[in-house]
Amino acid sequence: MTDSRYYVLTRRPNGMPEKGVFELRNATLPELQAGEVRIRNRWLSVDPYMRGRMDGVRTYIEPFELEEPLEGGALGEVIESRHDDFTVGDRVIHMAGWRDTAQLPGDQVQPLPNHEVPEQAFLGVLGMPGMTAWLGLEHIAELKSSDRVLVSAASGAVGSLAAQLARLKGCDVIGTAGSTSKREWLEERGIRAVNHRQTAEALTRDLQQAAPDGIDVYYENVGGTMLEAALNVINPFGRIAVCGMIAHYNDTEPAPGPSNITHVLLRRLRMQGFIVLEHMEHYPRFVSEVGPRVERGEIDYEETVFEGLKQTPDAFLSLFEGGNTGKMLVRLEGSDA
Amino acid sequence: MTDSRYYVLTRRPNGMPEKGVFELRNATLPELQAGEVRIRNRWLSVDPYMRGRMDGVRTYIEPFELEEPLEGGALGEVIESRHDDFTVGDRVIHMAGWRDTAQLPGDQVQPLPNHEVPEQAFLGVLGMPGMTAWLGLEHIAELKSSDRVLVSAASGAVGSLAAQLARLKGCDVIGTAGSTSKREWLEERGIRAVNHRQTAEALTRDLQQAAPDGIDVYYENVGGTMLEAALNVINPFGRIAVCGMIAHYNDTEPAPGPSNITHVLLRRLRMQGFIVLEHMEHYPRFVSEVGPRVERGEIDYEETVFEGLKQTPDAFLSLFEGGNTGKMLVRLEGSDA
Repeated sequence: MTDSRYYVLTRRPNGMPEKGVFELRNATLPELQAGEVRIRNRWLSVDPYMRGRMDGVRTYIEPFELEEPLEGGALGEVIESRHDDFTVGDRVIHMAGWRDTAQLPGDQVQPLPNHEVPEQAFLGVLGMPGMTAWLGLEHIAELKSSDRVLVSAASGAVGSLAAQLARLKGCDVIGTAGSTSKREWLEERGIRAVNHRQTAEALTRDLQQAAPDGIDVYYENVGGTMLEAALNVINPFGRIAVCGMIAHYNDTEPAPGPSNITHVLLRRLRMQGFIVLEHMEHYPRFVSEVGPRVERGEIDYEETVFEGLKQTPDAFLSLFEGGNTGKMLVRLEGSDA
Repeated sequence: MTDSRYYVLTRRPNGMPEKGVFELRNATLPELQAGEVRIRNRWLSVDPYMRGRMDGVRTYIEPFELEEPLEGGALGEVIESRHDDFTVGDRVIHMAGWRDTAQLPGDQVQPLPNHEVPEQAFLGVLGMPGMTAWLGLEHIAELKSSDRVLVSAASGAVGSLAAQLARLKGCDVIGTAGSTSKREWLEERGIRAVNHRQTAEALTRDLQQAAPDGIDVYYENVGGTMLEAALNVINPFGRIAVCGMIAHYNDTEPAPGPSNITHVLLRRLRMQGFIVLEHMEHYPRFVSEVGPRVERGEIDYEETVFEGLKQTPDAFLSLFEGGNTGKMLVRLEGSDA
């Protein structure tokens, strides 16, 4: 008899979720069926996109069901297997996060790729966040080495990789971040840093100073005044890869869009939204390109780690206050095991 | 000695231009130089994009100089030539509009393509407006016959052609227009018509009714609440070809952008601005594709004609009040010759 402790959503949040909407539950797992595996999770991923699934509205992904286990990226070890591809002790990644023990059909479980990196990198730099950064630059913005690049939230899980990947390609890179220490982290890596917690006007001035010749590619993670300022400094034929708009995820009322949307026309911009899950056919190419660079230490990745399953809601909510540098993770072994 | 009467801008307009900013001037033309041609204009084009050139700011095109002859598409007859490619009597198109007599280097003058259509069609359906419609659909939106298409200002010079070209491709087309007679014109051509002079909410409801399965391509001529409503009804992976945003050209203050700009991300949209002048290498293909269809009467095009040079400012200003169905033209022969 194995139990699973898992978080559920008890009601739909309005705006920034209160901690009370998350509740920890316990259930005894049913007997393992043929083709299934049971996994003890060691690392959970929490990500801004999860906020969208907490509303009851279908977007590109089904909303979370109330009173059902929440989902998200997770990494763990197989503790029981009735699937031919997996044996006890295998390390795997899957989407049954927000819980300590998962039970899943084996075809929803991926073995860890074979690279000499700490295992949790496969939830960050070599997982969905890294793939998102790479995909947005390479496939959506069609990045060239001569481009000047602006990355917003450039110290976050995705942004910090987008900024570094663009640097490695030879681009001039400007990154925005909300705190002094995050901006220092960027500057140390050759990325000119700008504070995005400003009015659109002040932010525009700072960006003009950081990029007197404008920018060619904008990697968008934030929205709001950040997008407006980026539209002010982007050059003709600029490309905007829209990866996220975290400033809007807790909006309770529609917020006005950028007042300079006409720049899309005047500057002949291309602005495109994308969701990494719809481009997973590129994952092997991404890992084979970026994996060796991470192994060689050419890409720095930061982690912000909360300890123990019970901290999962705090880790998630902290994302919206800029509480993370790099990937936000919850570690289950140790304090909470 | 030949005189030219021409319009100048006497000062920069703020918002909707007053008629007084335009003044008619007269000058004796200098002697024709080697390589030049002199043209008596018969048709002048006035177009919404000209409003942008009246501000003193460089966008994709130089602003009009104060006290210099205004410019724009024009069609006329060569009355004197010192260029080998042109002889007296040739019909030509060029950009020295807003005047009765033009004098230009021959390399800035195009002979009329050879199609059996009224000559002024080369300022409309087979000129820049037609090319703009075709280019936005084919090259920017990458239109497929299975797409549902929304065209705003679908009774205008560009919109009426975009709507009909999409219909001829086999698409389901919804068009918006601001008056009953314009909407009737659209309905008679198999285009479901919606009134765009409404709040974003009301317009969204009307579009949902006209296109219960949403739209895949939005051909944007208007901006403002129209763009917001279009973003509400566009399907995942929709493409938005941004050709114009006439609602904003007379803005004196920045107007809020669409409050649902996050749909670009949530629905993985691609929104792209374009300027026809930067794609003129496709003009021969456009004329060879669309010219025969116009000759065969498969494409209807309307004209709104003001008579006489002195009406040019009125014709231009009327564009912003929806005073035109189809192409707005000024005819110089007759009343004003």
